[in-house]
Amino acid sequence: MPKFQLAPPQRILLGPGPSEVPRRVLNAGSLPAVGYLDPSFIELMKVVQEQLREMFLTENRYTLTITGAGTAAMECAIDNLCEPGDTVVCCVHGFFGDRMRQMYERAKVDLHLVTAPWGEPIDPENLKKTLDSLDKVDLVSVVHGETSTGVVQDVKTLAEVVKPSGALLLVDTVASMGGVEFRTDEWGVDVVYTGSQKCLSAPPGLSPITFSDRAVEKIKNRKTPPKSWYLDLMLNWKYWDDNPGYHHTGSIQTMYALHEALNLLQEEGLENRWARTKETAELLYQKLENLGFKMLVAPEHRLPTLTTAILPEGVDEAPMRKKLLTQYNIEVAGGLGDLAGKAWRVGLMGHSCRKESVHELHRVLSELLKGVTV
Amino acid sequence: MPKFQLAPPQRILLGPGPSEVPRRVLNAGSLPAVGYLDPSFIELMKVVQEQLREMFLTENRYTLTITGAGTAAMECAIDNLCEPGDTVVCCVHGFFGDRMRQMYERAKVDLHLVTAPWGEPIDPENLKKTLDSLDKVDLVSVVHGETSTGVVQDVKTLAEVVKPSGALLLVDTVASMGGVEFRTDEWGVDVVYTGSQKCLSAPPGLSPITFSDRAVEKIKNRKTPPKSWYLDLMLNWKYWDDNPGYHHTGSIQTMYALHEALNLLQEEGLENRWARTKETAELLYQKLENLGFKMLVAPEHRLPTLTTAILPEGVDEAPMRKKLLTQYNIEVAGGLGDLAGKAWRVGLMGHSCRKESVHELHRVLSELLKGVTV
Repeated sequence: MPKFQLAPPQRILLGPGPSEVPRRVLNAGSLPAVGYLDPSFIELMKVVQEQLREMFLTENRYTLTITGAGTAAMECAIDNLCEPGDTVVCCVHGFFGDRMRQMYERAKVDLHLVTAPWGEPIDPENLKKTLDSLDKVDLVSVVHGETSTGVVQDVKTLAEVVKPSGALLLVDTVASMGGVEFRTDEWGVDVVYTGSQKCLSAPPGLSPITFSDRAVEKIKNRKTPPKSWYLDLMLNWKYWDDNPGYHHTGSIQTMYALHEALNLLQEEGLENRWARTKETAELLYQKLENLGFKMLVAPEHRLPTLTTAILPEGVDEAPMRKKLLTQYNIEVAGGLGDLAGKAWRVGLMGHSCRKESVHELHRVLSELLKGVTV
Repeated sequence: MPKFQLAPPQRILLGPGPSEVPRRVLNAGSLPAVGYLDPSFIELMKVVQEQLREMFLTENRYTLTITGAGTAAMECAIDNLCEPGDTVVCCVHGFFGDRMRQMYERAKVDLHLVTAPWGEPIDPENLKKTLDSLDKVDLVSVVHGETSTGVVQDVKTLAEVVKPSGALLLVDTVASMGGVEFRTDEWGVDVVYTGSQKCLSAPPGLSPITFSDRAVEKIKNRKTPPKSWYLDLMLNWKYWDDNPGYHHTGSIQTMYALHEALNLLQEEGLENRWARTKETAELLYQKLENLGFKMLVAPEHRLPTLTTAILPEGVDEAPMRKKLLTQYNIEVAGGLGDLAGKAWRVGLMGHSCRKESVHELHRVLSELLKGVTV
């Protein structure tokens, strides 16, 4: 067997993440190691923390990164916020809402679901009915940008519905933060998390998360410790607090890269990036519709960072997607659930969200679909 | 406030890890992103898996990385192996054995401790007594190289003691794997984990772990799922199995780097690296003793990758260590527990384990200690 040669192809990444990482960010991630409590690293963590507050649009003191994938941050939120027997309302309108449901089951909470069909957002009226039917609710959770369907949830409206119940509100923004408008404090969201490798275009492995004072209060008053030691917020916080101490070894190089990715976000401006993402998404809808694709989601509920497009009749989904990847170096993702084999999910996240990539996708697809579609 | 400039100093890292990362490894870690199920990435994972089997000296099918720090791998092992009520014997002879104890408490097992004073290994006779006193034991755990004290545990002998009990044996090799002799299959160890950033000298963030068939059998027959969804072995395994599927986004760039770090290990040869580490450690003992340091651990129990050295009388520990770091760019760590303020922990891990670094440490310390020691 010839020796394996590490030579990853240079892909145009239009999948659900990871997105393409700018060279500046990759270079930052290849700077030399320092100790996990090196003064230079502690200083960097403080800078990143401040950058994350600007990204989340929050003044939350408890703003940090979890060392792991976005799913680790999801479990960190759920594990710290929930004690057995708590009443939780979990909104499920796609794959990631359902993942949260699975985690709540392990957390042994009293679980109530509010669902919507895949491709539609949660109806605030349905949430309201469920909340009204319960004596007390400790926590409500929802996914802002469902990567599985391409639906953006109007979290501002949902937060208004949740407020009278006194419940904490947890929102997954893995596929949206930095690409789609989200205002943590203004909207009154208690806990928000995301990943480094989606709209931020840093390498994967660090997951930003923020907790309101109200959420921290609840966590500090727990009767039992969270199930996980690794994801225990108060133990992790020792690393991020003043006079930081050891909890685990931080991901030094990925933190360098995340910092540089957040520099790029600051240089562009958060609102400018939201606008750029929206504009590029509009171009994508138009180009795909020209080719005979149909958009799954109604215009007002479309997540600009991820588009689910149903393929034109007569196209063999998986072989076409494979050809796109292996012959043209363009990654898009297949549909999930009922849409497997029928739809593509096309991501426009961070550095991957470029009009030239949409044009290239259109050019290649025009070629490939010639004579194939009915 | 002037804008923060990311410019980490080039340190000589002689702490408890992370170790210095070779330029080849850093460069590999700055290659472009691909999708988490990209054929090129899946191929890489298979190669890394095989490299990890060579490193662990195992043929275990269930050999993979956990996306997180070494502590995540520790919790993965404990969380998957333990069900509430299981009988567990936890050996504690330092900080990391005690960390395992804390995790077992959250796992609600019937916990029995075998302890040794900091600076000494677990006495196999004590373990035997405890095992003999129990009707059945499900799991025994021990730390191979205690980073907190610099003691190496004779795991081969311990494994012989455990064998008649039928218990599974879990060993933490975070500070030793790749630097000190360890033979997973030959010694009969069921579960072993380590970190990427210690003796492998890759960036932190991925933690190799391996499970014997016997361990997997126990996990497959659990009555309840593990507490953690993120660290659930069987869910993670979907990503590493044939026909891999999505569980979480792998740390693409860190995996590139880990692969290159494992290439370096293969090029040098595992046994050669064990020998180099031992030789370099002998030089370190000699040089430190020349300066008036006293070794905490008896020669036969010394962990070559980490040395605890008690400072000469009259030296102000923390200021001296700070001077070493900030003026000479050399990192060593302070003592823990009773040894705080009295001892240093000097690491010789992977790429940081170089004779020239020991000579440089000696040269600088000779300067600094002149006229200070009593």
